[in-house]
Amino acid sequence: MIGVFDSGFGGLTVMKEILKILPEHDYMYLGDQAHVPYGPRSKETIKRFCKKNIQFLFDRGAQIIIIACNSATTAALPYLQKEYPDKHILGVVIPAAEKALESSRSGVIGVVGTSATIRSLVYNKEIIKAANKLYNKEDKKYCDKIKIFSNACPLLVPLTEERWHKKPETKMIMRKYLRRLKDAHIDTLILGCTHYPILEREFKRVMGRNCRIINASREQALALKRYILEHPDIGLSKNSSRVFYTTDCKDKFIELGSIFLGQPINNAKKVEI
Amino acid sequence: MIGVFDSGFGGLTVMKEILKILPEHDYMYLGDQAHVPYGPRSKETIKRFCKKNIQFLFDRGAQIIIIACNSATTAALPYLQKEYPDKHILGVVIPAAEKALESSRSGVIGVVGTSATIRSLVYNKEIIKAANKLYNKEDKKYCDKIKIFSNACPLLVPLTEERWHKKPETKMIMRKYLRRLKDAHIDTLILGCTHYPILEREFKRVMGRNCRIINASREQALALKRYILEHPDIGLSKNSSRVFYTTDCKDKFIELGSIFLGQPINNAKKVEI
Repeated sequence: MIGVFDSGFGGLTVMKEILKILPEHDYMYLGDQAHVPYGPRSKETIKRFCKKNIQFLFDRGAQIIIIACNSATTAALPYLQKEYPDKHILGVVIPAAEKALESSRSGVIGVVGTSATIRSLVYNKEIIKAANKLYNKEDKKYCDKIKIFSNACPLLVPLTEERWHKKPETKMIMRKYLRRLKDAHIDTLILGCTHYPILEREFKRVMGRNCRIINASREQALALKRYILEHPDIGLSKNSSRVFYTTDCKDKFIELGSIFLGQPINNAKKVEI
Repeated sequence: MIGVFDSGFGGLTVMKEILKILPEHDYMYLGDQAHVPYGPRSKETIKRFCKKNIQFLFDRGAQIIIIACNSATTAALPYLQKEYPDKHILGVVIPAAEKALESSRSGVIGVVGTSATIRSLVYNKEIIKAANKLYNKEDKKYCDKIKIFSNACPLLVPLTEERWHKKPETKMIMRKYLRRLKDAHIDTLILGCTHYPILEREFKRVMGRNCRIINASREQALALKRYILEHPDIGLSKNSSRVFYTTDCKDKFIELGSIFLGQPINNAKKVEI
């Protein structure tokens, strides 16, 4: 059983990518809608919420847990891995950071995300770490060339959750958020929030052909696949079952969740955590 | 001691109006930022959060509690008044509904608020109730003429919290939200969310001269003044003290809160509830 959790709907874009490449496994999804959004909250508060969610999923038999939320990964992943040293907990940041590094020719990389993610500089750190690992001995010059520009886009979460993702106001707001990154001539942009894949096409349009868009949800799904291949001992069950939990309104979860998942969610259980 | 609480910053627009007319009293403000926003959440979840907040304020000596949040008032006020039958708990809806009725000549009234407030039809019910009380015997025809048009404007909370309240995108979004109400020729508009007074000027501009804007925060402050005059037995303390509590990031509360309060907040205490 694989457990996936997010503060709300965003994690369903990760689930969507995972189901594309690993449909045979069993999944539990937990959307902590009662506390959404995590992005603007303090690190301590996010850690407290995450601990409860993780425990909930382990109690129900999760063998691997995917934190499908950038704010939660940023604020709480090392803390959670320390709290549960014998468990498998994967975050969303590193796979996208590595992919961006691989994709960028100029080394000028952009990152967008919630305030919590951007403020933490987590993508900056992981890109630099990956660059040092990859190029340290071979190409010191490349490492020195890396420049990272980032911008918080906090309004994109409510705009997608209110289904304004195709409206002109959203495009205007995106253009404003991305102006500085365009001016910096980034050639690669990481969508560092699991809500943003809903806007992937718009990001492509605003950034133009010369900028490669890295969908962190897709990279996390690919990383899970690699992880499973490397850890056959986990013995994951394979009955293609899916269970959805939400900490708030079930009907809203089913309705809006189906858009994020890209396929209908037939049922969800409301739980208090 | 008067306790004021809200899901976040909005209640500070109520506090601002209260401090203008009742500066001599002692106040505790609680912003439940760890759970903001209440608007999109289910009734049960909002009730659960409110109960905890109310208890927190009573434990610290509150003699009257003001629920300075439309979503919380709508979802939880009758429940809280039942849970605490001997206590003084006031909500934000009724004063604004009565004022709107008093202001409107045509009887065609508009209401804007969060999804929870609008979905509940609470303003509709309170306006009709007030109309029946006021006009029942004298002017049955006026009661029959009353028409209420409402629209949820959920994006205005994140837009004001992200300080986009003066940007053109916010005005465009407001125009879209208000189009139906303008087309209905309302002559009075209730700002049924405590965040919206930040946008009062923009609401006036979009709605034009023929529409009167009712600021629910101001009406709640005036209602509190009347309530205090009618209940001298409460024996409220008068040392002009102010204490601010937040359930999340203290620094953000002080910074953004000062904008909503219209005066600097010098200190705030972070609490876990």
